[in-house]
Amino acid sequence: MKEDRLFFSAKHSEIKKGKVTDVYFLKTMKILKHLNLEDTEVKAEVFAGESGIFCGLKEVLNLLEDSECKIYSLKEGEKFSKKEVVLRIEGNYSEFGIYETAILGILASSSGWATAAYKCKQAAGEKPVVCFGSRHVHPSVAPVMERSAKVGGVDGVSCVLAADILGIKPLGTIPHAAILIAGSTEKIATAYDEVMPEDEPRIILVDTFKDEAQESLDIARILGKKLEGVRLDTPKERGGVTPDLVREVRKRLDLEGFSHVKIFVSGGLNPEKIKTLSEAGADAFGVGWYISAAPPIEMTMDIKEVEGKPIAKRGRIPGITENKRLKRVK
Amino acid sequence: MKEDRLFFSAKHSEIKKGKVTDVYFLKTMKILKHLNLEDTEVKAEVFAGESGIFCGLKEVLNLLEDSECKIYSLKEGEKFSKKEVVLRIEGNYSEFGIYETAILGILASSSGWATAAYKCKQAAGEKPVVCFGSRHVHPSVAPVMERSAKVGGVDGVSCVLAADILGIKPLGTIPHAAILIAGSTEKIATAYDEVMPEDEPRIILVDTFKDEAQESLDIARILGKKLEGVRLDTPKERGGVTPDLVREVRKRLDLEGFSHVKIFVSGGLNPEKIKTLSEAGADAFGVGWYISAAPPIEMTMDIKEVEGKPIAKRGRIPGITENKRLKRVK
Amino acid sequence: MKEDRLFFSAKHSEIKKGKVTDVYFLKTMKILKHLNLEDTEVKAEVFAGESGIFCGLKEVLNLLEDSECKIYSLKEGEKFSKKEVVLRIEGNYSEFGIYETAILGILASSSGWATAAYKCKQAAGEKPVVCFGSRHVHPSVAPVMERSAKVGGVDGVSCVLAADILGIKPLGTIPHAAILIAGSTEKIATAYDEVMPEDEPRIILVDTFKDEAQESLDIARILGKKLEGVRLDTPKERGGVTPDLVREVRKRLDLEGFSHVKIFVSGGLNPEKIKTLSEAGADAFGVGWYISAAPPIEMTMDIKEVEGKPIAKRGRIPGITENKRLKRVK
Amino acid sequence: MKEDRLFFSAKHSEIKKGKVTDVYFLKTMKILKHLNLEDTEVKAEVFAGESGIFCGLKEVLNLLEDSECKIYSLKEGEKFSKKEVVLRIEGNYSEFGIYETAILGILASSSGWATAAYKCKQAAGEKPVVCFGSRHVHPSVAPVMERSAKVGGVDGVSCVLAADILGIKPLGTIPHAAILIAGSTEKIATAYDEVMPEDEPRIILVDTFKDEAQESLDIARILGKKLEGVRLDTPKERGGVTPDLVREVRKRLDLEGFSHVKIFVSGGLNPEKIKTLSEAGADAFGVGWYISAAPPIEMTMDIKEVEGKPIAKRGRIPGITENKRLKRVK
Amino acid sequence: MKEDRLFFSAKHSEIKKGKVTDVYFLKTMKILKHLNLEDTEVKAEVFAGESGIFCGLKEVLNLLEDSECKIYSLKEGEKFSKKEVVLRIEGNYSEFGIYETAILGILASSSGWATAAYKCKQAAGEKPVVCFGSRHVHPSVAPVMERSAKVGGVDGVSCVLAADILGIKPLGTIPHAAILIAGSTEKIATAYDEVMPEDEPRIILVDTFKDEAQESLDIARILGKKLEGVRLDTPKERGGVTPDLVREVRKRLDLEGFSHVKIFVSGGLNPEKIKTLSEAGADAFGVGWYISAAPPIEMTMDIKEVEGKPIAKRGRIPGITENKRLKRVK
Amino acid sequence: MKEDRLFFSAKHSEIKKGKVTDVYFLKTMKILKHLNLEDTEVKAEVFAGESGIFCGLKEVLNLLEDSECKIYSLKEGEKFSKKEVVLRIEGNYSEFGIYETAILGILASSSGWATAAYKCKQAAGEKPVVCFGSRHVHPSVAPVMERSAKVGGVDGVSCVLAADILGIKPLGTIPHAAILIAGSTEKIATAYDEVMPEDEPRIILVDTFKDEAQESLDIARILGKKLEGVRLDTPKERGGVTPDLVREVRKRLDLEGFSHVKIFVSGGLNPEKIKTLSEAGADAFGVGWYISAAPPIEMTMDIKEVEGKPIAKRGRIPGITENKRLKRVK
Repeated sequence: MKEDRLFFSAKHSEIKKGKVTDVYFLKTMKILKHLNLEDTEVKAEVFAGESGIFCGLKEVLNLLEDSECKIYSLKEGEKFSKKEVVLRIEGNYSEFGIYETAILGILASSSGWATAAYKCKQAAGEKPVVCFGSRHVHPSVAPVMERSAKVGGVDGVSCVLAADILGIKPLGTIPHAAILIAGSTEKIATAYDEVMPEDEPRIILVDTFKDEAQESLDIARILGKKLEGVRLDTPKERGGVTPDLVREVRKRLDLEGFSHVKIFVSGGLNPEKIKTLSEAGADAFGVGWYISAAPPIEMTMDIKEVEGKPIAKRGRIPGITENKRLKRVK
Repeated sequence: MKEDRLFFSAKHSEIKKGKVTDVYFLKTMKILKHLNLEDTEVKAEVFAGESGIFCGLKEVLNLLEDSECKIYSLKEGEKFSKKEVVLRIEGNYSEFGIYETAILGILASSSGWATAAYKCKQAAGEKPVVCFGSRHVHPSVAPVMERSAKVGGVDGVSCVLAADILGIKPLGTIPHAAILIAGSTEKIATAYDEVMPEDEPRIILVDTFKDEAQESLDIARILGKKLEGVRLDTPKERGGVTPDLVREVRKRLDLEGFSHVKIFVSGGLNPEKIKTLSEAGADAFGVGWYISAAPPIEMTMDIKEVEGKPIAKRGRIPGITENKRLKRVK
Repeated sequence: MKEDRLFFSAKHSEIKKGKVTDVYFLKTMKILKHLNLEDTEVKAEVFAGESGIFCGLKEVLNLLEDSECKIYSLKEGEKFSKKEVVLRIEGNYSEFGIYETAILGILASSSGWATAAYKCKQAAGEKPVVCFGSRHVHPSVAPVMERSAKVGGVDGVSCVLAADILGIKPLGTIPHAAILIAGSTEKIATAYDEVMPEDEPRIILVDTFKDEAQESLDIARILGKKLEGVRLDTPKERGGVTPDLVREVRKRLDLEGFSHVKIFVSGGLNPEKIKTLSEAGADAFGVGWYISAAPPIEMTMDIKEVEGKPIAKRGRIPGITENKRLKRVK
Repeated sequence: MKEDRLFFSAKHSEIKKGKVTDVYFLKTMKILKHLNLEDTEVKAEVFAGESGIFCGLKEVLNLLEDSECKIYSLKEGEKFSKKEVVLRIEGNYSEFGIYETAILGILASSSGWATAAYKCKQAAGEKPVVCFGSRHVHPSVAPVMERSAKVGGVDGVSCVLAADILGIKPLGTIPHAAILIAGSTEKIATAYDEVMPEDEPRIILVDTFKDEAQESLDIARILGKKLEGVRLDTPKERGGVTPDLVREVRKRLDLEGFSHVKIFVSGGLNPEKIKTLSEAGADAFGVGWYISAAPPIEMTMDIKEVEGKPIAKRGRIPGITENKRLKRVK
Repeated sequence: MKEDRLFFSAKHSEIKKGKVTDVYFLKTMKILKHLNLEDTEVKAEVFAGESGIFCGLKEVLNLLEDSECKIYSLKEGEKFSKKEVVLRIEGNYSEFGIYETAILGILASSSGWATAAYKCKQAAGEKPVVCFGSRHVHPSVAPVMERSAKVGGVDGVSCVLAADILGIKPLGTIPHAAILIAGSTEKIATAYDEVMPEDEPRIILVDTFKDEAQESLDIARILGKKLEGVRLDTPKERGGVTPDLVREVRKRLDLEGFSHVKIFVSGGLNPEKIKTLSEAGADAFGVGWYISAAPPIEMTMDIKEVEGKPIAKRGRIPGITENKRLKRVK
Repeated sequence: MKEDRLFFSAKHSEIKKGKVTDVYFLKTMKILKHLNLEDTEVKAEVFAGESGIFCGLKEVLNLLEDSECKIYSLKEGEKFSKKEVVLRIEGNYSEFGIYETAILGILASSSGWATAAYKCKQAAGEKPVVCFGSRHVHPSVAPVMERSAKVGGVDGVSCVLAADILGIKPLGTIPHAAILIAGSTEKIATAYDEVMPEDEPRIILVDTFKDEAQESLDIARILGKKLEGVRLDTPKERGGVTPDLVREVRKRLDLEGFSHVKIFVSGGLNPEKIKTLSEAGADAFGVGWYISAAPPIEMTMDIKEVEGKPIAKRGRIPGITENKRLKRVK
């Protein structure tokens, strides 16, 4: 076993060389050459198994940058419906056949993440949603996932590399770990204020040691006007973050004159919870699992024309599918 | 936007440098230094949200190879139960804190894939299961996914790079695409037989143009004893692969003297379908979506001891959790 | 046991003589005579247990042709609602009492079949529906069933005797049996074309040996413009007839210039399936089980007036039920 | 429309002549003759869509009495399981092809009725079950239905013609109609006792005018030791016949010394109700709808061998199906 | 055990003295005195766990008649919604703290009964509803329950003491017991007519010995114009009171000229049954279990202000809740 | 309206005088006298609508202490099954008829409470259960309810009057109200310790202001060995009391050397929650709503014998029901 690699994920160069391919595509090329068919002109279409938000085109175009195929596609961020054709490739089969595995994988996973992110953002309306999901995916795809979430509509991401790629500032405060090591939320809040640049918003996590409402007030009394917000991340074992909790923290902050302090919520959020927490007064949302563990959206590639003649395997409609939303992108 | 990269996935070096991290771990380090706490000795535990098969340790150890932390862990391929602690890290927080995101992501996704693969293999018993799922994940993680499937128990994989990493031969025949281009399954079968090395089993996909039973016989008549098997991959639009279809193809092959021809099935398989198709006579199973679109298994890291003192955030039990199954791995 | 009859079904003469009667009606006549009550004037009503389409009146009138009773009734083919009175008989009890069993049986079974047929026709709209259900009922009632289906709205029937009674031409092509015996659909299609009169539409069953789409094209190439339609009757073991199959066959026929070839579907149809297959492009529907295995609609006869006095057994409302839709039919 | 027949049901001679056939069998014969294939030797099998009790063989044998086919079959009254082959015909196709519609119809409906009857009898154990269902089927099949019920296990039937065919005495007392005309249950009970032969059991229906318990006692006081039983047929509008009612009537009869009076129940019975009413003390059961409105059991005929060669349409297993339970019956 | 009391229910004097209190309120007073806090000014609010009809205020005011607290409240009979504050007490805690148990118990049980009664009355519309539920509650609270039902909207009550307290005439006829002792409904009906004052409506229970329809007519023939109504209370064992029964009794009475006789129904009624029976012709309704076994509506008292400062325990919103519907009642 | 009473509940003397009776029993007596039937000897039975624990006999015997009836009954605390006869009264109808309403009400409500309490105690096993439910019932029945709970098996009660009647010490600590007024749990805990007698266990409610785990430790540090237990009563708004919370509080107490401190739980408990909380380490249970809001168990009285003759209304079995478990109690 060649397990002497640092990581098992594919390197960019390996992907580009077509090594991430199901072996039958290699065999296919061998056989087609044997039959002198390797330069057959075909039209292939990719359709989606479910409705969603289209994402991944940029990487697909990079993958095919050296080929002479024509590509027609939706734009990243556009909605597609179930069974809709989202991409069409026209050209010499040998120029893209080997990439089928990679093309479908890019589109399926990217669109899955973008779609989940879109639903969260729809639920949140004007209020910001931040993607916190890197910890649930392999680090090699974490930036792909967060970029897709951004395409789907989230306002910020927490992964440093993803933010770097997107040219934005990563968002996040400090974790429970820091507070546990310091032994006190107050101590951490004070230090945070001391070391962070002025333009960094002071948002403090308030559920580590004490009751959330109590700790929110304790921190607000320390940081005063400088406190931008508190983050509620109550674990399931304590009932999770609920509308009742948000309403109570809001009221207790207001009663003591801290109406400027925002309430940031996280922990097991999904579009429905975002909606009810928002109605209860939450101001911003950190979403992890719902976005990053979202299933891919199945993408299927079918050859629909061979040398100008409509064709299809049994079960599929021969000939290209008209879809006026597809635009020439290459 | 720095979208001038070839792909958005993280490079091995980026992961190793800790760039795939939620930003709050960077802030944590800054603050802990400010408080002179960066060298705090801690014990941190990772527990699983669901039961499953443990996978990903190899990459985690590579990630931490330069640290002096002690690590206790299950072995890859071992079962774990819901809420069980699967990994414990003891050492200087600064040596591993920044890697929390990556460690959890590796374990969560690898264990999710291994667990799904394990269930398929349990259903198939002695009969071979091959992982065909690369097309549903981003190409950067396809080899991670297929290696995890192997750890979970599958007998073969289809991705060339994954097979290369695992030091095995990739499995797979030829796709519908090749047959559509050639215009005839018989033509492809003949060519396949002509160009492939002798030790490559002749397994032909038989549902592209004709009825599966009819095409199975047509191919068997051409390749005779050399035909190792036929692959049924009937699309949903034609009822999918069913026990009735398997029984009928088996009987028709037998009636014409082709009892040596095996039946390989694929297309939307899951453990339950594997079981009923196996009972109906299927000899081998190609599984894609069920394995590669399996959700991650949530992994959570908790600091449980700080400088020798049991601690935990609200909602968790302070102090390390006894688990005799954990072994020192570093 | 007098099992020396050819069939156990009742002969017309046996029915007319009142031999198909529950024995208690014979006893009733004996007792009423003993009490000098045999000529009691009564009004009896028949009501339906469920809503439906009224059918069977013609036979009931034939049964009672010699009596002097007045009869009020709905017309055959009219809708009735649950619990509605559909028939009223007024007269000397001895003239019709013995026929209660037969009257109710005729109306219950005929209305059951007519109602099921009506629902199929509603689903099919303008497109033709043909009753194929004789094989699920005893041959003695097959013509009753098909005539009821016609009253309920179907466009054609397949049973020769029923068609004869209805004065129409029976519909149907050739069964799988013929094709199996001939060993080839093409051979049968050619022969069919040769021996059938010119005005007999050429509709060929295309699922015996080959894939439906493939066989449709093969037959279309043979019969060309003479081919009226293909019949899809895919068995459950191959996924049955689905909207996807219809769409694909339609498209493949069109692509090769056979737009004139109609698609006739059959096999386990019901109103819901008719609707979705029609939307997918099916042109005509052969319905068997749904019509012929339809349960009877319970019909109950109550005496509601005796010698001009309202009466009823416990649980029923005494006196005749006003229903302006009933018309004097005898 | 030739609606000048007395009834639309088929005459025995029409069935024997093969007029109750789907028209495609006529066409088949014409084409096979054209192809000189009319004398093809085939083996055809009939299998059942559901499990049940086999019935109808006698009529099938009468239908085929003039042919030279060999027939293998289960015996009437035997159980069969789902998908089991219940009948095999071997011979010249022209000798039986035209009868396929009638054969299947006979077996499907007869077995459906026999199966329902069997379930009722199983529930009743040693206690008698009488079939009262003629009123729910067309009079032409009423005797077929009641004979099938007898094959399925019932102890008696109510239809005069059916009883005559079976060589038994029809069972039944007097209906509500007689009591309503006489205006009093007591009057009818007295007259019944006066006019009926001594060996005719005195069973009186007790729910027409009064409460069942009250009327049972009133009648018992009149007929004393001569009263064999009372029949409870309480309509749904009064709660139907329930275990509580049976228990109460039993107790009230016993308390007044009428322990010899049996309780006969009817009205909407099914196996489950039979069981609970039997436990509550009911002595005999009259079953109508459950038996006579039972759906047919789908019977399908497949040609499995042509001129000695195994064959089958797509979806079925070629060649005859071994079933040791089949015995040569012709 | 001091079980030498006649009954275990609390005497009025015991309630007034605060003996029906959870012991922790006594301890509270002791401790607050120890801390010199017994005269703390507080504002306490009572909110409801479910929506309903408010009832019990009169007793609460009597309980607190000697205190100087200010009380704000809804009015008895008003609707409240889930979580709504229904009562606020402002004053010296020592004046009402000990009564918390009693106050909540009064409001919870009274509002539960009033709410159930309200729903029955809503279903009955203009037709009278009488509360028959005393037999399901302890006799000590029977008058509280019936008074609450009156507040909720019922038109009459059956308990003599409750009617006395409400200053109305108790309603009810005679029970099955009387008829069983007399051995005949007719005998009881006649006696009832003889001994009752003229203004007492003659309503007779008609299901003791005979069928309801039969007995209704028998009684109507005896009492003629004097018969105000019949009461149907058919037990479950005979199918209960159903719309069909009501319709039939109505029709049979009308047919014999007794249109003036009303139909009073009882036995397991609830709002839904009241509605369907009313539509079938029932004129009045006796409701027992649905009202008297109705669960209490949970009432919770929270201290929301202490010495003018908003406060609340964790989980509740500090400070008084604005509710303009509350009016000063003391 | 005579609403000038202090409370609407019945006084002991009113119950004894038979004023809590449905008015039809008064009318019955009047009519029976008119018919000279007031001294009829009857046997009446009470049966239960559901299974449960028998309770209320003591009050029933007090109610009938002056009559000469014979009474047969189960013992308080015994189990009864659905439909079982639990009480039989034999004697002169005039001596007990008027008490039917009260007798049934006492038994129905007392048995309902005892049954609910029994189920809680079954779930708790050896660990103590205390009834806290007075606040959900009218104060007049609070002691009846708590005595019934004791008969059903609870170990203690909180209502002062009930405890007094039962001759036991009432249980309970101090409510949230006290802590809110004092403004600090620590202050209250200290005061509690100062003023309470030594033999009064120190159990402190720990969820008013702070997180339960935090407050448990704070209080344990103050009271040390004197602290008997902490009470967790977490409101629904904070996730309620869960097994996770119990486990965590237990562990945190143990880690700081407070293993002697018991965990008392309350708040929305039912048998299922008691079981899971007990398994998680809870030591004692305070149950309110589940016991005190338990529905009554319907009790029905039937006259089964009149002057030695078996009788019953329609729907019931005449004559007394044999039940060897009934013992003569008067």
